[in-house]
Amino acid sequence: QCLLSGSWRSDSGCRMVVSAVGEDGSFSGSYAPGPAAGGSEILPSPLQGAQQDAGLVPQPTFSFIVRWQLPGSENTRTTAFLGQCYVGTAGEETLHTLWLLREAADSPSEDWKATR
Amino acid sequence: QCLLSGSWRSDSGCRMVVSAVGEDGSFSGSYAPGPAAGGSEILPSPLQGAQQDAGLVPQPTFSFIVRWQLPGSENTRTTAFLGQCYVGTAGEETLHTLWLLREAADSPSEDWKATR
Amino acid sequence: QCLLSGSWRSDSGCRMVVSAVGEDGSFSGSYAPGPAAGGSEILPSPLQGAQQDAGLVPQPTFSFIVRWQLPGSENTRTTAFLGQCYVGTAGEETLHTLWLLREAADSPSEDWKATR
Amino acid sequence: QCLLSGSWRSDSGCRMVVSAVGEDGSFSGSYAPGPAAGGSEILPSPLQGAQQDAGLVPQPTFSFIVRWQLPGSENTRTTAFLGQCYVGTAGEETLHTLWLLREAADSPSEDWKATR
Repeated sequence: QCLLSGSWRSDSGCRMVVSAVGEDGSFSGSYAPGPAAGGSEILPSPLQGAQQDAGLVPQPTFSFIVRWQLPGSENTRTTAFLGQCYVGTAGEETLHTLWLLREAADSPSEDWKATR
Repeated sequence: QCLLSGSWRSDSGCRMVVSAVGEDGSFSGSYAPGPAAGGSEILPSPLQGAQQDAGLVPQPTFSFIVRWQLPGSENTRTTAFLGQCYVGTAGEETLHTLWLLREAADSPSEDWKATR
Repeated sequence: QCLLSGSWRSDSGCRMVVSAVGEDGSFSGSYAPGPAAGGSEILPSPLQGAQQDAGLVPQPTFSFIVRWQLPGSENTRTTAFLGQCYVGTAGEETLHTLWLLREAADSPSEDWKATR
Repeated sequence: QCLLSGSWRSDSGCRMVVSAVGEDGSFSGSYAPGPAAGGSEILPSPLQGAQQDAGLVPQPTFSFIVRWQLPGSENTRTTAFLGQCYVGTAGEETLHTLWLLREAADSPSEDWKATR
């Protein structure tokens, strides 16, 4: 349980597909924002991450980074996700995550507004 | 310029070593906390990340994840860093970063305190 | 609508009571954590904040600070909340918030871990 | 020491003036962004906050909220600051802070990008 491989859907309609998880916990996959976050303009974007060994801990933490594929731009947006997979009393798996989104800034003086 | 390969040092004494950056921008390396953050107890820990193509943009953004190697624990701490490399008027390179640190929580009700 | 005065309850069982909102948007009140966040040990704690004028904007933003009353300590924990009140299609009011929690640290070198 | 009353200046050129701190730790004042953050367009803006009792703890934590006065807008930006005053070996006072900046969003589906 709580192996991240497979499909996940967030409350806000984002969809994540995770490949097989490697022996060292690493995985890749794709992430597509929901309709609310400009889903139609943004392509499913590649993610790279890793999780704790689900064989050693029942509720593993995980982290992954999405490099957004925006039409006509140079990957200027990146989001890092940190979270944990929890197992409910009925055995259902739920992911809780927090994220930071970084955009390119023009100069250090603009840096303060580059992260959401 | 602003290719991340090499050694970096933070204001607080953390040291980062980044390997050769691949064609797709990916890199690996190690991160060691400074004396203030329990530097003696924490081993240099592996990092995985990626940066924008430094040949296409002069001040590339980057992101990487550190999975902390703590003695006698199961990788329960992970830090995601998001940042950008800026080039100063004298050509010097400076990294500006923000980070989130995630620890494992026992249950969803403890989740609120798991991220710094 | 979206005047904050009254009682609110979060998904995780926290309860907030907001006093009358002043002409300048300021308000006070109390905040009690839910059972999951140590609800029984933490007393309802005072909050101070302000919101945009609900007469001028339909979905006002707001901010408030809670100084936690913990038994036997010197107010060492403070949480800042930032959010916005949204009105649904059926007229129902919902608050969306993000928060930062600050604890006292012993020294600048411990500062990195003081904020969640 | 570490009574917040007086003038402070940040690394990035922001200036903060804090009034007399009340018996309950509350204070008001004004905050002006530095040249890098659009200092010329943004007026010094009012802040409201509170700090721990500097007579009881040597390095008090503090929190305050700035409601930005932007020309021709309805206070749509608010920043919450959380921090601590540290005393160095030579007795010098330094403030360490983190902040969140909230803007108004048009709808809950835009909420994800409203906080930096």
